[in-house]
Amino acid sequence: MGMIGGGMGAFIGAVHRKAAAMDGLIELSCGAFSNSPEKSKASGKELGLPESRVYPDFRTMIEQEKKLPADQRMHFVSIVTPNFAHFEPAMLALENGFHVVIEKPMTFTLEEARQLAAKVKETGLLLCLTHTYAGYPMVKQARYMVEQGLFGKIRKVYVEYPQGWLSELSEKEGNAQAAWRTDPTKSGKAGAMGDIGTHAAHLAEYITGQKIQKLSADIQTIVPGRALDDDGAALLRFDSGASGVLIATQVAAGEENNLSIRVYGEKGGLSWRQMEPNSLEVLWQDKPKEVYRAGQGYLSPVALHNCRTPAGHPEGYIEAFANLYRNFALTLQARLSGEEPDTTLVDFPDVEDGVRGMAFIDNIIASGKSDSKWTDFKI
Amino acid sequence: MGMIGGGMGAFIGAVHRKAAAMDGLIELSCGAFSNSPEKSKASGKELGLPESRVYPDFRTMIEQEKKLPADQRMHFVSIVTPNFAHFEPAMLALENGFHVVIEKPMTFTLEEARQLAAKVKETGLLLCLTHTYAGYPMVKQARYMVEQGLFGKIRKVYVEYPQGWLSELSEKEGNAQAAWRTDPTKSGKAGAMGDIGTHAAHLAEYITGQKIQKLSADIQTIVPGRALDDDGAALLRFDSGASGVLIATQVAAGEENNLSIRVYGEKGGLSWRQMEPNSLEVLWQDKPKEVYRAGQGYLSPVALHNCRTPAGHPEGYIEAFANLYRNFALTLQARLSGEEPDTTLVDFPDVEDGVRGMAFIDNIIASGKSDSKWTDFKI
Amino acid sequence: MGMIGGGMGAFIGAVHRKAAAMDGLIELSCGAFSNSPEKSKASGKELGLPESRVYPDFRTMIEQEKKLPADQRMHFVSIVTPNFAHFEPAMLALENGFHVVIEKPMTFTLEEARQLAAKVKETGLLLCLTHTYAGYPMVKQARYMVEQGLFGKIRKVYVEYPQGWLSELSEKEGNAQAAWRTDPTKSGKAGAMGDIGTHAAHLAEYITGQKIQKLSADIQTIVPGRALDDDGAALLRFDSGASGVLIATQVAAGEENNLSIRVYGEKGGLSWRQMEPNSLEVLWQDKPKEVYRAGQGYLSPVALHNCRTPAGHPEGYIEAFANLYRNFALTLQARLSGEEPDTTLVDFPDVEDGVRGMAFIDNIIASGKSDSKWTDFKI
Amino acid sequence: MGMIGGGMGAFIGAVHRKAAAMDGLIELSCGAFSNSPEKSKASGKELGLPESRVYPDFRTMIEQEKKLPADQRMHFVSIVTPNFAHFEPAMLALENGFHVVIEKPMTFTLEEARQLAAKVKETGLLLCLTHTYAGYPMVKQARYMVEQGLFGKIRKVYVEYPQGWLSELSEKEGNAQAAWRTDPTKSGKAGAMGDIGTHAAHLAEYITGQKIQKLSADIQTIVPGRALDDDGAALLRFDSGASGVLIATQVAAGEENNLSIRVYGEKGGLSWRQMEPNSLEVLWQDKPKEVYRAGQGYLSPVALHNCRTPAGHPEGYIEAFANLYRNFALTLQARLSGEEPDTTLVDFPDVEDGVRGMAFIDNIIASGKSDSKWTDFKI
Repeated sequence: MGMIGGGMGAFIGAVHRKAAAMDGLIELSCGAFSNSPEKSKASGKELGLPESRVYPDFRTMIEQEKKLPADQRMHFVSIVTPNFAHFEPAMLALENGFHVVIEKPMTFTLEEARQLAAKVKETGLLLCLTHTYAGYPMVKQARYMVEQGLFGKIRKVYVEYPQGWLSELSEKEGNAQAAWRTDPTKSGKAGAMGDIGTHAAHLAEYITGQKIQKLSADIQTIVPGRALDDDGAALLRFDSGASGVLIATQVAAGEENNLSIRVYGEKGGLSWRQMEPNSLEVLWQDKPKEVYRAGQGYLSPVALHNCRTPAGHPEGYIEAFANLYRNFALTLQARLSGEEPDTTLVDFPDVEDGVRGMAFIDNIIASGKSDSKWTDFKI
Repeated sequence: MGMIGGGMGAFIGAVHRKAAAMDGLIELSCGAFSNSPEKSKASGKELGLPESRVYPDFRTMIEQEKKLPADQRMHFVSIVTPNFAHFEPAMLALENGFHVVIEKPMTFTLEEARQLAAKVKETGLLLCLTHTYAGYPMVKQARYMVEQGLFGKIRKVYVEYPQGWLSELSEKEGNAQAAWRTDPTKSGKAGAMGDIGTHAAHLAEYITGQKIQKLSADIQTIVPGRALDDDGAALLRFDSGASGVLIATQVAAGEENNLSIRVYGEKGGLSWRQMEPNSLEVLWQDKPKEVYRAGQGYLSPVALHNCRTPAGHPEGYIEAFANLYRNFALTLQARLSGEEPDTTLVDFPDVEDGVRGMAFIDNIIASGKSDSKWTDFKI
Repeated sequence: MGMIGGGMGAFIGAVHRKAAAMDGLIELSCGAFSNSPEKSKASGKELGLPESRVYPDFRTMIEQEKKLPADQRMHFVSIVTPNFAHFEPAMLALENGFHVVIEKPMTFTLEEARQLAAKVKETGLLLCLTHTYAGYPMVKQARYMVEQGLFGKIRKVYVEYPQGWLSELSEKEGNAQAAWRTDPTKSGKAGAMGDIGTHAAHLAEYITGQKIQKLSADIQTIVPGRALDDDGAALLRFDSGASGVLIATQVAAGEENNLSIRVYGEKGGLSWRQMEPNSLEVLWQDKPKEVYRAGQGYLSPVALHNCRTPAGHPEGYIEAFANLYRNFALTLQARLSGEEPDTTLVDFPDVEDGVRGMAFIDNIIASGKSDSKWTDFKI
Repeated sequence: MGMIGGGMGAFIGAVHRKAAAMDGLIELSCGAFSNSPEKSKASGKELGLPESRVYPDFRTMIEQEKKLPADQRMHFVSIVTPNFAHFEPAMLALENGFHVVIEKPMTFTLEEARQLAAKVKETGLLLCLTHTYAGYPMVKQARYMVEQGLFGKIRKVYVEYPQGWLSELSEKEGNAQAAWRTDPTKSGKAGAMGDIGTHAAHLAEYITGQKIQKLSADIQTIVPGRALDDDGAALLRFDSGASGVLIATQVAAGEENNLSIRVYGEKGGLSWRQMEPNSLEVLWQDKPKEVYRAGQGYLSPVALHNCRTPAGHPEGYIEAFANLYRNFALTLQARLSGEEPDTTLVDFPDVEDGVRGMAFIDNIIASGKSDSKWTDFKI
């Protein structure tokens, strides 16, 4: 694996590295960790990489790595830069035959996303979009139970993602994470909707198997002086009959990272909360509530495939992230061995999810500006 | 107290009686328990009332009670009939000098509500609307903390009321509660929005002190064959700057009576859930989450006024209901003694809340039918 | 009902009155509310009793009530005085043909308890001991599930009752509740073990159907200057093979009234906590955890018999208390009508539970003083 | 790092590898993964190690590694074999100048533990005992708060570790984990007490800073046919005045890995539960309960040192394990650089904890067999 971005001090880069390392399937072999060659070099040194594999920029990295013998060069790049700097390295990597792992939202614009999708299709290379929360085993279990029809036809979906960390104008007080995320030139046309709204939308579609068809949104910038939205909510209608609500806000003071989802069908429903991710509550109309737990033998094969420890030994955010990397690596290994991975077990968000995520941003921002109640979800 | 409705087998009538009896301040002295004189008589007998005080209908009751000496007759009527049968007895009671306790929603139409409000104003009599959930001590604590400004300016309000009991077409299967609530001739123009949406809206306005100013609703009838809405959600804007979401559904299969509310200001927020009502979670941006508990000495005077037992001895729904009756009775006692009750301690939802509730029904149903995003909240 | 004790300011007397009033089956008709005739009179007045039925002391009450015509006099006495003042009025009531409701622990000494038991046997009158927690519907459900053998043979029982209210020497600072409970002349030979240890022991035996056979206790007085035990724990062995631990402490600073019990058999277990009493967690070896909820149709008949409201409308401590009174009243009614109550539905702790409670106090205090590991449970 | 044991299929070996890899500080460079040379070879291959560094047995590994140049050889061994196979490799490693990470319980007998402690003292080498639960950030926070005296003098300690996985005689049904843990020739003189009782005892002493001084235990073999204890409980007295209860059982059917601890002082208390490890509940006598959360800026430096992700991004069991490895590695790095690590931040259980753990096993088993109530804790 070669990393682009994620130099010293970056939050998500370190998470990617821990996640990639967890299962012994992936080795960090090179990187271009910063747009400053010095910082990149220092980061690479800190990470124990040989100097020759630490590059001043992603172009050099891709060019140089390509020249290495196949058994020595990186197999894929992992792109962990801010949104505006996703497209170029991803496209270049694909053009040069490297598979790609990339942070969400996938690109800066929907148009870029479409181009990446076309390139992936053209090259047949793999692209994994790190919608972390889709990596949790109990999310897999939820998806499985819905798919099996245990709840009957799905009617209601409530997904919410309240955070409080942007309750103040912290981008003006030296918070680097806040600074780029609230800067339209780096984050794109959306703030909260891009950063966390896309996660919520992906989770809802992933678990239900239904796609958002139209939405009605109230998008706001609550904190005075902020350049992008930091709050929003939307009424949702899905393509197979469900409806629901999506909430994503970064000004719910006191909230940490409280993503949760509830899905109800004709016979029962389920509830999952990211902050206690190893439990999945299952409600029934006529029998006691059940609590499914990670690591238990009664789980579906796909949920168990994404567990590492026996029940009661909690796994968390880094493990969920690691599941994306592991499933990506297993798919890549299978491909390199000329085999097909078992896609009922091994899955990860891909370039199509990335396109939908960028479309979600476009559509929800458009709806926020519209006086009409409903905005069709267009791609 | 004289009761109108609430004969044998009725759910809410029995709750009213238990609640009224709890604190030894109110005695059930007469009733017209059914629109069938025989059923009324039988109910009265079962309740141990003397035959002479069990009436065949509410008109007779009001007329006869009025003729009794002042120290023997009922002080007030408690109206626990279905919605369509609220207005007439309430108006007649007020016209004859009796105070009124009345179930929500207050009337069948907004116009009736306006007339009741005018009559209350004209007569100076008391009217208590039984928005039960406003009787919980931790709801009082929540309101108090918001009012004290502890969270700064309130920005976000999420209130939701999921139930599952109408997930099937149970009104066609002999469920009497379901039958009248889904019948437009008995329930009014709304189903779920009237039955539980009004509770959610009242709770949001009660705790925040802000009034809904406009809303954007998606109102649906999910179960085929049902005559009224059983599901809805709305984006909300309040008059002092807050915004939020209201969810009320009766088709969230597996949910019991899961009313909850979260309110966030600039510095923190709070979360309360009716099904575990003795805890109030309080979140802060920069210090640990707190859990306030009913019965604790550190609570506000108004919260403690509404507790009966020391912390750790849970109080529930009937006790919350009893708080409405107790506060109503204390206000009535004060008035009878020519005193003023301490309204910082003793409060209950009144006729103005009832008018707002009926307006809420009108406005949310109108919004549900509208193609415009926002519908102004009109009274 | 005639009440003995429970004058103004008393905690438990007020709870008894609310509980007795809840279901409209019992009327407070007279009382001797204090050992001060003036206080008794004032209390009776506040409670709206006619002057003629408010007595200066329990002897006068029993004597005078006996003289009233059968259809006018009280049916039973409710004794809510401190422990040392239980026996005399209870014995006098029984001797005069009145049934008895009595607070736990039943008497001051085991010998008194034995005498009461003999008198109950002799007279055939009813005696209800108010082990409140046995009145909760989910405790009934727990007992039912154990009895049905759903968990297989019961192996382990962990019951604990941590409180924090005696963490300081509050009996010296004007806390009346603390004062008599820590005074050996009023409370008896035990403090915490009598006040809450007996509740814990009763709950364990009630749910499991097994009796404590031997125990090994560490009994302490943690707060310097206190005259009785305020803390203890014991290893337990039961008569049908279970073993476990009992914890009862009043110096767990910060704890409210956190009684809980866990029971495990060969196939699964259950967990119940008084502070959230409407849920019963059920664990299984090979399937998801279940949460049984009060008010749900799937509960056992005995659990549903002890519910008043639909699921999701929480009932609490006063309702549990009211279940004891209701079941006592239903049994009394049945007897007065020459019928047999359905004891699979209608039950309450009785004089035998009271004898066991007093024996528990004796045995655990004896064990606390013993150097031997095991002390046999003797009655 | 060189690993001893932990070949294919072993649970704890894989956890050690993931934990060691997490922070990029430690590399698995060699191993003797099984007592079967073939299995060791296969495991090493699967783990991607060069053949030359995969050894047929630990003796060969230590001998060969020692011959490598200092900058190429392993720095330390990680011993993840069953209990009976801890002492020999640990001693050999120390004698040959290698630091040691070792699973708990540290040895097969207390005498071996004493010898290891003497050798560590003699050589000055590091030994890290993997009491995983001491690696959780909220355990560090708990210890910190107790140490700071926030709760006053500690009075009560309740620690419990219920599991259900040995509810049946699974050692006879091909469960390899169960087989060695219930075999006295592999596990030692204790089953549950060694496997999980030692964890509970360590946690209690680690958080409170007090040492167990005497105990009174009931130790049982509940499942017929089992060769070692699978259940136990003990009354505890600590050396600085606290007392409490320890529960450890492997037959609480339905329980996963439910280690929890509660500690109470004069002013308040704390509660932590391993299965939701990112929250620490803090109770106070006179103010609301607080919930401290992993990753929050208000935590103590030592707690934050042991967090990797911002609040709301849950860390789990593997991360706690990784904290032991990281702190061990940081200490080792410091030593290699001739520096002193900041022991207020960087700590891990050591050989003295290992000796106490083996003494705990001896003492609790002795107490279980004794008729005297108290057994002094002897080392």
